[in-house]
Amino acid sequence: MTPQSAFLAAFSLHPAGVAVITAVSPEGANVGFTATSLASFSAEPPRASFNIAQHASSYSSVSVGSRVLLHFLAEDQVPIAQKMAGPSDSRFDGDHWAVDTRGLPRLSGVRAVLDAHVVSVTEVGANAAVIVEIDGGDTNTECAPLVYVERRYHSVGDIVG
Amino acid sequence: MTPQSAFLAAFSLHPAGVAVITAVSPEGANVGFTATSLASFSAEPPRASFNIAQHASSYSSVSVGSRVLLHFLAEDQVPIAQKMAGPSDSRFDGDHWAVDTRGLPRLSGVRAVLDAHVVSVTEVGANAAVIVEIDGGDTNTECAPLVYVERRYHSVGDIVG
Repeated sequence: MTPQSAFLAAFSLHPAGVAVITAVSPEGANVGFTATSLASFSAEPPRASFNIAQHASSYSSVSVGSRVLLHFLAEDQVPIAQKMAGPSDSRFDGDHWAVDTRGLPRLSGVRAVLDAHVVSVTEVGANAAVIVEIDGGDTNTECAPLVYVERRYHSVGDIVG
Repeated sequence: MTPQSAFLAAFSLHPAGVAVITAVSPEGANVGFTATSLASFSAEPPRASFNIAQHASSYSSVSVGSRVLLHFLAEDQVPIAQKMAGPSDSRFDGDHWAVDTRGLPRLSGVRAVLDAHVVSVTEVGANAAVIVEIDGGDTNTECAPLVYVERRYHSVGDIVG
């Protein structure tokens, strides 16, 4: 196996929760994308991390100080995950979102949403690691989690171990 | 909800694959830890990211140039996930690992393993975001994936969407 084929095979096998990150561009446009890299960074202060390509349509909207919304998708939101990973000019076509009190596009029906602002952007090669600090949020434990693994969306199964 | 309670609630609801990262300390000791923050960073070159606290027992072993092994755990490896998240002085007690050809502690029975070296460490507050580049690896698709969500280990469920 080449390093790249081993990398692709291993991460295809690695389950991930599904998030959608939204923001408003410096030009005032709604931007957003589906991310499987969202992770907890520190609990005190509450911070999270995600990765983004520098050529991505949302990249200019995640500089230090930018406000973002982190949405944690539910099991019944595969169409939203797919739409927000599709062509960038049609990601906000539809009624799956509304403008929140800060002017950001906020998705409805999610399991959790966090308001955040960017505190660090580290560019490595053509990509970047972004760290955000949490300013508030809400959860809805009545919907089930969504997992992406082996190039398909899945529900979560039984407790093991 | 305070920002911190919203953060804790949202990330408790967020599913994650379970990885164990191992290395050898500058003093020659085996070190390692269970991580739910391991994510793909870029495909070309193949790079991944994970987060670590600067007070962690493994932190001095993940400076730029350090070699690390990324293990992707299988559904039947909850005891290993728990052991590698437990007291740092007993994480290598047992026969769940062996020394690999590079001298690193390599766990057996995993779904995938990637050989890597650290290319970037970004310290933010008391934590750090680490980016590693993949040098090789192997996968074993005969075992099932493991997911951590709502403070418990789970199997992956049915395909949805």
